Formats: sequence, structure tokens, C-alpha cells
Amino acid sequence: MSLIVHKYGGTSMGSIERIKNVAKRVAKWHAAGHQVVVVPSAMSGETNRLLGLAKEINELADRRELDMLASTGEQASSALLAIALQTLGVSARSYTGWQVPVRTDKAYTKARITSIESERIKRDLDLGKVVVVTGFQGVDDEGNITTLGRGGSDTSAVAIAAAIKADECLIYTDVDGVYTTDPRVEPDARRLSVISFEEMLEMASLGSKVLQIRSVEFAGKYHVPLRVLSSLTDPNIDLDVEKNSGTLITLEEHTNMEAAVVSGIAFSRDEAKITLLGVPDRPGVAFNILDPIAQANIDVDMIIQNQSVDGTTDFSFTVNRNDFKRAIEVINSTVVPAVGAREVFADEKIAKVSIVGIGMHSHAGVASKMFRTLSEEGINIQMISTSEIKTSVAIEDKYMELAVRALHKAFGLDKEPEAKA
Amino acid sequence: MSLIVHKYGGTSMGSIERIKNVAKRVAKWHAAGHQVVVVPSAMSGETNRLLGLAKEINELADRRELDMLASTGEQASSALLAIALQTLGVSARSYTGWQVPVRTDKAYTKARITSIESERIKRDLDLGKVVVVTGFQGVDDEGNITTLGRGGSDTSAVAIAAAIKADECLIYTDVDGVYTTDPRVEPDARRLSVISFEEMLEMASLGSKVLQIRSVEFAGKYHVPLRVLSSLTDPNIDLDVEKNSGTLITLEEHTNMEAAVVSGIAFSRDEAKITLLGVPDRPGVAFNILDPIAQANIDVDMIIQNQSVDGTTDFSFTVNRNDFKRAIEVINSTVVPAVGAREVFADEKIAKVSIVGIGMHSHAGVASKMFRTLSEEGINIQMISTSEIKTSVAIEDKYMELAVRALHKAFGLDKEPEAKA
Repeated sequence: MSLIVHKYGGTSMGSIERIKNVAKRVAKWHAAGHQVVVVPSAMSGETNRLLGLAKEINELADRRELDMLASTGEQASSALLAIALQTLGVSARSYTGWQVPVRTDKAYTKARITSIESERIKRDLDLGKVVVVTGFQGVDDEGNITTLGRGGSDTSAVAIAAAIKADECLIYTDVDGVYTTDPRVEPDARRLSVISFEEMLEMASLGSKVLQIRSVEFAGKYHVPLRVLSSLTDPNIDLDVEKNSGTLITLEEHTNMEAAVVSGIAFSRDEAKITLLGVPDRPGVAFNILDPIAQANIDVDMIIQNQSVDGTTDFSFTVNRNDFKRAIEVINSTVVPAVGAREVFADEKIAKVSIVGIGMHSHAGVASKMFRTLSEEGINIQMISTSEIKTSVAIEDKYMELAVRALHKAFGLDKEPEAKA
Repeated sequence: MSLIVHKYGGTSMGSIERIKNVAKRVAKWHAAGHQVVVVPSAMSGETNRLLGLAKEINELADRRELDMLASTGEQASSALLAIALQTLGVSARSYTGWQVPVRTDKAYTKARITSIESERIKRDLDLGKVVVVTGFQGVDDEGNITTLGRGGSDTSAVAIAAAIKADECLIYTDVDGVYTTDPRVEPDARRLSVISFEEMLEMASLGSKVLQIRSVEFAGKYHVPLRVLSSLTDPNIDLDVEKNSGTLITLEEHTNMEAAVVSGIAFSRDEAKITLLGVPDRPGVAFNILDPIAQANIDVDMIIQNQSVDGTTDFSFTVNRNDFKRAIEVINSTVVPAVGAREVFADEKIAKVSIVGIGMHSHAGVASKMFRTLSEEGINIQMISTSEIKTSVAIEDKYMELAVRALHKAFGLDKEPEAKA
């Protein structure tokens, strides 16, 4: 017997038929003797419907009230799932975030979990019940409802798994695992049977949408083994087959992947580049340019400062495309008058492509192989940034797919790693 | 400055446009210096939509989970109303039943309010906020969400008004008050400007759907002045006009209605009659017939026992049409074998018509005027029941409208009462 958390996304909960299938799957685990906590998202489309109603009244509605509103989606889907489980003869009970309670700070619409009381869940599990807990939401210390932001149900599931010391947290979704890259770009992309937390973090932060990045951070911090797997298979498939399907995200060094230096290719079109030409090259110039950007709550990703020529230099950085307009405003209104710059140059047509792999840093030549591969395809590299387990480049966005496919092939990701055979 | 509770029904909250109108109306009261608590229902159709989803899974879903599900409707509409108020520049905040908290027993889907903590509401009112509280719901002493049953938002509003000692509780609805009878049946029906609690109780229990009966009981018990008025008028109409519109339901003896012996005609088609023919006329026969019905939790309304002939009698009673099938089962399976009866006769084609008036009991001849009026229309009276302030008759249902119109005219309800002029 093990203690398992299941999380189901909005698509998996998207209709009464699908909710019944989720119930069948959970019932199968329960019948095999496992203790199961289920964390469902709202039925697909419901959160957008609710927030759309609020937008009809006010585009910038109060965030506390938006959380009051949006949290109803998961409350309804959780009750429906409990009813579906009971209909299959499984004793089940649903709880909202405040009933558990899942405590958070008061950052409405993007709250962070501060603690989870596990007594109520554990008591019901010990009585043989399946416990359904609303994803995406919690309660602050004044009893106001909070939500964790888009995709927050992943974080809810992992946090609950950590609180009750679950053996594994299964994230059921509409893809069947984590791939070496997006199969829509590279049809030869291969599902990874195992990936490290660090690699998954990079994949998530670099644009792979399989898991919310905070849930991966949480899982790493609290040592919760995570598995991403499909909710679209027959709910009655053999439990042992299901247990080993998908992709396991683990803290342990996965020896069977030692041979694969690069685990995956991540990419993102959500980037935009801002370049200040002819900036006086004085000490503190980077701080003077980037501090006003940070003050405006805009995250900067890649940064380059060129070699100084005649006492001036060129300074480039990238931001998320959503923050691009605000960033340009800050540069023009605050930075340029203070620092001085000959010209500000903005480029929305860039993409970021990254190779990710935990073995990368200890293998010489990985980055240079990346650069050679892109060069052979005639792709110009505009910016480079590196970390322990990834190397990213900014390129013109029209070359993005070509770059992904070329790198996927160059690093042999279309083939099973040798050590695994 | 006065402390006022507004309640808005599902139709009044039925679209974003209507929610904005509710906000305008509330803002007008707030701007005039009143402290306002608003209790909205779910947007019309939403509760049915949610319960319909549950029915797709299971016709007899667990009641705790149904409450978890259905309560989301009011939570969403309350948040939307708070957003609409804030958009008009009114400081507002919404609370669910559990946040107030509104405490109830654990009778899921038809819970009763046991207590309401008023501190949170009062603190916000003192800060100048409009407080929006979800109708229809509360929380039991184990922290489970409960609902009060259909129409329960009326009861929520009255209970909150009692708890915070409001000066008046205004029930905004899609009719503009309480009428002498249903205007769809009698076009000359007249709106009452004032009615006593006792009369309103009888009108509600006899089929007038303007207010949930429990809310009237609550208002009477806790001396909360209630007013039923229209939410469909221009939200910007003069406040003094609005304050005096609709129908006031009051504990005070309303002298301006002394002249009107009968205040209204109520009617209901929700009745069914069961007759046991040839029952042995022994002491205790009524108990032996009706106790098993009571044990099955079925309310009996009118009862007749005929004069005994040859040691047997005929015994008739009415029940709500929803309970009719179960009542027949109880009679056939339990009562007939124990008591003995020649025949059981069931009649679903009956209606109940009642005259209601607080002055009735002290005025001789009111009942006989009723009987004469019906007789002149050729309507046969099957059963009669009387109380302090009402006389009801059961008649064949096809005569119901005719009876209502004839009685409305006979008691002069189409004319303003003299003392009021």
C-alpha cells in the first residue's frame, strides 16, 4: 500500500464523461489498496468563463474578489468528482483549500502556499476514503480565499503530497510525459522515462508547458517524486502499466541516462530584446540600466555588454514579450535620461533555444557542438547565456524550428540513450 | 443614517447588465449615507446548471457534495457584485457564508441557520464599506458547507438583518410587492402597501411564491421589518420613492387596513387528496391512519372524518403533490392492513383556495360569504379547514381560477380599502 496524490488538469475534467473516467481511474488505484488524494482543476474553460464575466464589469477588477470568483471553478469540479467516486461505490469527500486548510500569503491571484494542515486529509484516508482537494487555491491568515495563479493546481498537488508525505505525486495531463522537445516541432521527439528536477526546472522555465515551474521547485525542495502521465488512456488499463508510464521527475541521479549528456531541447518565442547603443562605459552602467527595470517588477533574462569602443558600449537584454512595452517605457523615461544612450533598439522577433542536460557541465565541447550545429544551418547567434545544466541562445525567431530540429538530431535525442538498452 | 439589508434574487442578478444595475441601486443607498449589506442569489439558471451536472452523474448524489457544488453559484455572483460596486467607486467586499460565518445545522440541502457572527460585517460597515454576503449558504460546526434549500437567500437576508439589528430588510425581486392575489389569475389584483407577518405567513404557505416561508417566520420571530419591492425599476429612481414602494411586512397592527377583513386570496395546485372508504370507526382511527404518514416525514394539510354510518366512516386528507406517491405507498403497505378499509381513493385533481385576513376571526360571516360565493359559481367544496386568519377549501382543480376571481370580487379586493383613503 502506498500513499499517492493524483492531479488532473482542466482537460481531464472537461466534461461529465471525462470526470467519470477520472473517477474510474482513481477507483482502480483505491481498489488496489492505495490511499489516494485527488487534486482536480476546474472544468476546462470554466476559469476563463468566470474571469470573462468579471472583465465585462471591469478589466482591472479587485484581485481579492477575482480569487473569490475564480476559486468556485475547482470547488464545483471537486464536488462533481466526489459524487462520481461515490457513484462507483468509493467512499469519497471533497474539501476546498480553506477547509484543509491550505494556508497562503495574501498575494491575491498569485499567492504562495505557506503551510498545509494534513490532519483532516489523513483522518479521512485512515477511514478508507478517497480525499478530493480543490487545486489552485488556499486561504490567507484572515480567512480570505486566495488563488495560486494559472497552473496552480500542479503546485497544490505537490504541496499536498509534501504535507502528507506521499510516496508519489502523479500529474495526469493531456500529454503522456516530458519529451526531448516539443513533438509538434520535431516529430522524432522522444518521451523521457526519467528526468532530474534540475533539468525539468530548466525545461519548464524555458517554455516547456507540461508543468507549472513552481510545482517543480516545490517538488525538488520537499523531495516529492513527481510523475507526468496521460489522463487520456483507458482508465481501466493495467495498474502496473500505468504506474510505469509517463515521465518520472526525480532527485536521484539517474544512472540510466548517464550516456545522454543533453536531455532535451527547450525553446520559447516569448522573448523580446532591447539594445541600448552608445552607452557611456562607466562602472555601474549595468546596474543603472537594469535596476529601474527590476523596480518595475520586470524579469530580465539574457544580458550582454559588448567590448567598449571609444568609451562607449552597446548593452542588450531580453525580457518576456508581455513585459516588453513596459520595459521600453522604463528605458525611455528613466534610463536614457540618466545614463545617456545614442539609440534604443527594440527587437520582438527573437526566440530562445536551449539545450538542457545535467551531465552537460562535466562534458567538454557540448556548447561548442551547439554553436557549430547552428552555424552549419546558417543561423546567427545573437546572445548566449549558460548555467550548470543549460546553454541558451537567442536567434531570429524565424529560425527557431530549424534550430530545434538540428540540435535534436545533433545530440542524438531521436535515439534511445545507450545505457538504457 | 440607517442600517439596511438588500436581498436580490436570481433574476435581478441574471446578467452582467443586471448586476451593474444592482450595483447602481446599492451605490445610491450608500451615497445617501446608509450602511448597506447586500445578499445576492446566484445568477438565474446557475444553480440549476450546477445541480444538472451532478444529476448527469447521479440522480441521488450525496447531499454534502451537492451543497459544496451549489454554493459556488452565490459565491461567484457575490464576487461579481463586489467588483461592480468597486467599479462605481464604492468600497465593497464580499464574504461567503463560512467567512461571516453563518452557522447552520448539518441538514445538507435544507440546513437551518443556528447563529450568525456579526463582527466581521459590522467592522466593514464601520469602515464605510458595502458588505456583500452570499445568500443560501452557511457552514456547519465541522466546517462543511451547507445550503438552506431553494429560496434560502431570503432567509439568509432576514437572518443577517436580525443578527446586525438592521432597520429594515429589503427583498428586491421581479414583482413589485405582495398582491391581493396572483395578477396572472385576477388582473384586478391590487398591490398591498402593508401586510402583517401572520397574513404573509399564510399567503406564503398557501402558495404565494413571493417570499420563502422560513424567511417570513424568521422575520416575525426576530422582529425584522421586511419589504418586498421591485428590482426592475430604474436603479436611479428617487430614493424616497423607492423607500416607500413595494409591500411592507410588519409586526405592528396596521390600522389603515382595519376596513379590509380579507387581505388576499391564496391558492395552490400542489395538493392531492387521499380518501379511505369504509374504515372501522374506532377510537384512535385518525392516529392510526396519520401516524405512519408522519413517520414517513410527509406533512398532512387538510383532514376530514365523515359522520359514522353502520360502524364505519370515510377518512380523507391532503398532502403535497410531491409526497403523493409515497403517501399512497404508506397507506397501502401499512395503514390498510392494520386499520382495515373497504377502498382507497386517490385524487390528484384538486386545488386549494384560501382567504387570508387578520381581521377575519373577529368578523362574523366571512366564511359563510366565501361558501356562498363559491356555491353561486356552482363550485362544490370538498374539504374545509380554518385557522385564526384563514379559511381554506379544497375544490376540483379546474375551478381554481374561477374561484379566485369570484372571491377576489366578493371581498372587494379590487378596490382600495376605505380606511386607507
